[in-house]
Amino acid sequence: MRTVRLAVVGGDGIGPEVVEQGLRVLRAAVDGEAEIATTEFRLGAARYLETGDVLPDDELAAIAEHDAILLGAVGGVPGDPRLKDANIERGLLLKLRFALDHYVNLRPTRLWPGVVSPLRDAGEVDFVVVREGTEGPYVGNGGAIRVGTPAEVANEVSVNTAFGVERVVRYAFEQASARRNGLTLVHKTNVLTFAGSLWHRTVDAIAPEYPEVAVDYLHVDAATIFLVTDPARFDVIVTDNLFGDILTDLAAAISGGIGLAASGNLNPSGAFPSMFEPVHGSAPDIAGTGKADPTAAILSTALLLEHLGMSEAAARITAAVTADLAARDGSPRTTAEVGDGVLAALPP
Amino acid sequence: MRTVRLAVVGGDGIGPEVVEQGLRVLRAAVDGEAEIATTEFRLGAARYLETGDVLPDDELAAIAEHDAILLGAVGGVPGDPRLKDANIERGLLLKLRFALDHYVNLRPTRLWPGVVSPLRDAGEVDFVVVREGTEGPYVGNGGAIRVGTPAEVANEVSVNTAFGVERVVRYAFEQASARRNGLTLVHKTNVLTFAGSLWHRTVDAIAPEYPEVAVDYLHVDAATIFLVTDPARFDVIVTDNLFGDILTDLAAAISGGIGLAASGNLNPSGAFPSMFEPVHGSAPDIAGTGKADPTAAILSTALLLEHLGMSEAAARITAAVTADLAARDGSPRTTAEVGDGVLAALPP
Ligand SMILES: CC(C)[C@H](C(=O)O)[C@@H](O)C(=O)O
Ligand SMILES: CC(C)[C@H](C(=O)O)[C@@H](O)C(=O)O
Repeated sequence: MRTVRLAVVGGDGIGPEVVEQGLRVLRAAVDGEAEIATTEFRLGAARYLETGDVLPDDELAAIAEHDAILLGAVGGVPGDPRLKDANIERGLLLKLRFALDHYVNLRPTRLWPGVVSPLRDAGEVDFVVVREGTEGPYVGNGGAIRVGTPAEVANEVSVNTAFGVERVVRYAFEQASARRNGLTLVHKTNVLTFAGSLWHRTVDAIAPEYPEVAVDYLHVDAATIFLVTDPARFDVIVTDNLFGDILTDLAAAISGGIGLAASGNLNPSGAFPSMFEPVHGSAPDIAGTGKADPTAAILSTALLLEHLGMSEAAARITAAVTADLAARDGSPRTTAEVGDGVLAALPP
Repeated sequence: MRTVRLAVVGGDGIGPEVVEQGLRVLRAAVDGEAEIATTEFRLGAARYLETGDVLPDDELAAIAEHDAILLGAVGGVPGDPRLKDANIERGLLLKLRFALDHYVNLRPTRLWPGVVSPLRDAGEVDFVVVREGTEGPYVGNGGAIRVGTPAEVANEVSVNTAFGVERVVRYAFEQASARRNGLTLVHKTNVLTFAGSLWHRTVDAIAPEYPEVAVDYLHVDAATIFLVTDPARFDVIVTDNLFGDILTDLAAAISGGIGLAASGNLNPSGAFPSMFEPVHGSAPDIAGTGKADPTAAILSTALLLEHLGMSEAAARITAAVTADLAARDGSPRTTAEVGDGVLAALPP
């Protein structure tokens, strides 16, 4: 039997709670086919407050030895003064994405049967955002002078390379080709002319290799309009790290909420383990109350299995979530009850 | 009688059509109180294709001699190869904003009575976005090396200064104080740490001067969620140039469309004329068909009058638009018919 070595970073707030349900469903879905050998890494705001560590080198190295990573959510209570000097997001979450070269941040959006969109007329929403994960304004290439004086200047540099853009654009074309043959590049080429030109030229250069894919372009501002007025028009959106961050929260909102949004931080080359996480944060305000919806974490385990080549087990999880969502009657269920519901709906 | 010297840049596509209706309503609203002396400037993609000029220095200087600017929309047919080397947006629209130091880009959003939001349950939407207009990733401070080779690197620099952030944040506090005392800073402080810190510290430093204003902070991704799930929570949003661009298109979408979204590019110091324009673009596909809704252009003239201190005339325009929108029965009206309707509803 195959063994999957899984690094588990529950993190803070509701992170460990939703990961627990994700692991239950994951184990059940691969039962008889694979064994999930987990290593827990206690990382996040709580660990930082206790030990001062954010992501020690030896733990990063240990995580990198695994086949995949399942992450809950990291981040303490907003405004906690003790966290002021630690940027857990940068030092832990983004560090993992960058160190493990997660250049594809894959974020599917579906309006599941039975789920009510805040939009009157959402139509059939089923698209994926292929967000670049290792470049753009996320590189941490900023700086400031005369900090705290009236003459302060604070810069942030968005770094974009042909190397980085090409690999994620290729991935997006592959996705489009395997889906409904629609690819929309989203950028702001009329303002960010250098980066925009690189993205545009890259898409244009690769397009002839995928003659079946219809390529479209939208400025990021216009893309938000269409996500509200006609989200069904999208199949695959490819975009940079920051635009992808913004658009995927909006995508989650229009398709029934951040509680259902799964994501994969992928290193498609396989050089490093990929990392799967719900798009939502640690929500410290509801931690421990049992109110957190683990669906996004559960769906993230389906992306994990897909990535590891276990498509049938992945499909079983998706089918179970579909059945569970369709059966929900709107009465609140605890985190564990949602896990129970999905487990019960898991096809044999 | 007061004379308002108005520079008019109709621009491309539907720009001149909507500006024509805006001017009709503007003139009627100030009748007896002021005379509108217009100077037309033929600028935009059409002019560029004819003469090769985007914004000649002498025309910029002539525009700057006016009391205010009314702009329709600029930009040619997307993908027109003859426009490939001219970036009309950068060379004309952004050049005007930067040269005339329009550091406040004021974008009100209202769900008008009678207008149907694409959201099932929008609530009472009535907020303004105070978008910084002269800094951030819009400064044009990018560059690229090895263009067209596999080793290309394309950078974009977001420049943020204490000078620039403080003046727009002060303006936003004034707005909040004159409205419902709510101010939400939107940024991405956990990723853009240098710029984010400057924005955050600036808001924190000014807040004690406005003890009546409740200050809130949202990451830009989370802000898109709330704009969909609870837009009524916002009063004043203050944010940087790019986030403001993105959020205001989304705001227009949730409140009934870009056809109703007005904006003012303000130089509150009065050193340069302010510029008023609908948020929408030139929509070349419907130019000349009479399908363009001039409401956003008309509402932009209300912002113009407000800025010039003619609040009563501004209020008359707003009242007329309110009445006209409430009376619409959904059957299509031409651009001129909407102008007629607003004119007819104008209080004496
Ligand atoms: C926590 C934050 C750094 C992160 C991001 O901006 O990528 C989050 O918003 C996300 O989308 O995963
Ligand atoms: C045309 C473009 C440069 C402009 C902007 O990005 O500011 C537009 O989108 C706007 O919002 O006025």
